[in-house]
Amino acid sequence: MGEGDGGGDRRARMLAAVAERRDRVNEAVVEDLPSAEPERLYAASQHLIEAGGKRLRPALVLLVAESLAEGEATVEQPGVDYRSFPAPSGGDVDVMAAAVGVELIHTFTLAHDDIMDDDDMRRGERAVHHEYDLSTAILAGDTLFAKGFELMSATGAAPTNQLAAIRRLAETCTRICEGQALDVEFEQAAEVLPADYTRMIELKTAVLYGAAAAIPAILLGADDGTVEALYQYGVESGTAFQIHDDVLDLTVPSDELGKARGSDLLEGKQTVITLHARQQGVDVDGLLGENPTEEEIDAAVSRLREAGSIEFAGERAAELTASSKERLSVLPEGPARTMLTGLADYLIERNH
Amino acid sequence: MGEGDGGGDRRARMLAAVAERRDRVNEAVVEDLPSAEPERLYAASQHLIEAGGKRLRPALVLLVAESLAEGEATVEQPGVDYRSFPAPSGGDVDVMAAAVGVELIHTFTLAHDDIMDDDDMRRGERAVHHEYDLSTAILAGDTLFAKGFELMSATGAAPTNQLAAIRRLAETCTRICEGQALDVEFEQAAEVLPADYTRMIELKTAVLYGAAAAIPAILLGADDGTVEALYQYGVESGTAFQIHDDVLDLTVPSDELGKARGSDLLEGKQTVITLHARQQGVDVDGLLGENPTEEEIDAAVSRLREAGSIEFAGERAAELTASSKERLSVLPEGPARTMLTGLADYLIERNH
Repeated sequence: MGEGDGGGDRRARMLAAVAERRDRVNEAVVEDLPSAEPERLYAASQHLIEAGGKRLRPALVLLVAESLAEGEATVEQPGVDYRSFPAPSGGDVDVMAAAVGVELIHTFTLAHDDIMDDDDMRRGERAVHHEYDLSTAILAGDTLFAKGFELMSATGAAPTNQLAAIRRLAETCTRICEGQALDVEFEQAAEVLPADYTRMIELKTAVLYGAAAAIPAILLGADDGTVEALYQYGVESGTAFQIHDDVLDLTVPSDELGKARGSDLLEGKQTVITLHARQQGVDVDGLLGENPTEEEIDAAVSRLREAGSIEFAGERAAELTASSKERLSVLPEGPARTMLTGLADYLIERNH
Repeated sequence: MGEGDGGGDRRARMLAAVAERRDRVNEAVVEDLPSAEPERLYAASQHLIEAGGKRLRPALVLLVAESLAEGEATVEQPGVDYRSFPAPSGGDVDVMAAAVGVELIHTFTLAHDDIMDDDDMRRGERAVHHEYDLSTAILAGDTLFAKGFELMSATGAAPTNQLAAIRRLAETCTRICEGQALDVEFEQAAEVLPADYTRMIELKTAVLYGAAAAIPAILLGADDGTVEALYQYGVESGTAFQIHDDVLDLTVPSDELGKARGSDLLEGKQTVITLHARQQGVDVDGLLGENPTEEEIDAAVSRLREAGSIEFAGERAAELTASSKERLSVLPEGPARTMLTGLADYLIERNH
């Protein structure tokens, strides 16, 4: 989508809205994950958080809450107090605690995944197990996990709603573990079926987007139909996000990406791209040798592009995004819903 | 305490009661942690559970629930249905789900701790990262963690009580991580103060006993004074348990212990025993070389015994146990309270 047209303007507004919420989340994390003893454990727990990140999942939590409130016309923009967000049925909810909780859970998975994949870099910084050590990285992940649940049980929402949100988060964590286990298995597998791959990224990545969209609705007492539509919005746009991530791994220079370009290919990871290429007869395993040069990576990417595999992945992501946006019809029309629509588009248009 | 006297009879009854509850817990774990996909992840998650264990923490959950019910005279023994346990304020609570949840959290910590300590054996079986691999052991721990919270949010107790129980469990998990981080740090530390050591084992081990005793009271709607007294009972008897564990590591043959005798000493772990011995001028670091023979371990133990260090640890454990038993005065008199008293004694009398 070109700059200067209506779409470009919408995107600029959406990005500004997400950035504003990212800044609010960053302030909140300092409050909700303060430094404590033992110092090294908490420093390691904060390491990946401080390294940055777009805070897309917590932004989703906040935007869904805002969108639901638009129907009630109770929230004035800007300057909404996410710490005491009015619930339609009365009472205030700390939706920011839920947003930070979701981000801590996401960060826990990053810390542990980097150990399993032995990835050196994350968000342009050294992975936790490299910056610290294996034990500290495992424990930092566990601490973030526990803190995420502490926060999710301190939102002040109606107890029934808090309980449902916690249950959703716990089930989501179980699914994420299953997805990561499949991802590790697939690296060794001789053949992976496309359906199995899609299931894997749904579990590993998309369900947390689903939870991020569903949890504010649960906390604010939305009906089941709304909660499940928002969950599907998150799952579909999160799946599209992951497919796009796999494209970016091949197409964006290492310094912009914050990690080595082509690392998935080098590690033998299956992606929608490699699965498609295999079906087209491309010798995917022979595309890259050890320590490839930039030129060798370029050649491998060209080969995948010629096979139509990168285009195929892009089309699959676009279909999922289109479906995810339709789910948003359960929300009242308004600026927050427009931003959620724009966010879904952005997930497959971003270049890092 | 000798067999044949009144104490011996009481202990036999207590052990039978704990064993009966262990069997019930083992049946419940099969229901609450069923095999699922991916198979290898769930097999690894079940590995340490199936390896056995005394199920002391879940037994504590069940016994506290029973003791609270004795005051209400609503529960007939035996054959109590832990899945729908009557709450004094009405409604039924699945206290077994809470018991299994606590055991899963305990097992998660074992799986991750064994990685950090690179312990080969646990409960007489290979540690998860040896039986499977590092990635699977990290993920199995994470899965048990998530499942523990799933179960704790599915007890059917009054939502306010469930929420309080979940918050207690989440805070406990954070404390456990802090304790394990201190334990890892202490292995490298030049000097550890006794107060720091006591704090470490309180965090690493005792708080989960505290949570196991407090959570059933929270779920059944007991008053705050009762909840906190039970928490302290758990913390004190759990600290005594850990001190006794450190004694057993030195004094019980490897085959009875399910892991190598003297492993703490060999790994340079600080314990109440080694801290005392250092204060007595014993060269603790020089007590054992690499791959010690049974005779060399015997000689090291004799040296610690001569320094009074093993006796010192025993006295400290006995003091904590005496204090913990006094906390139980908040519970109504009855067989379950008697068993909780006996359980505290047993924690420092057991030989494995």
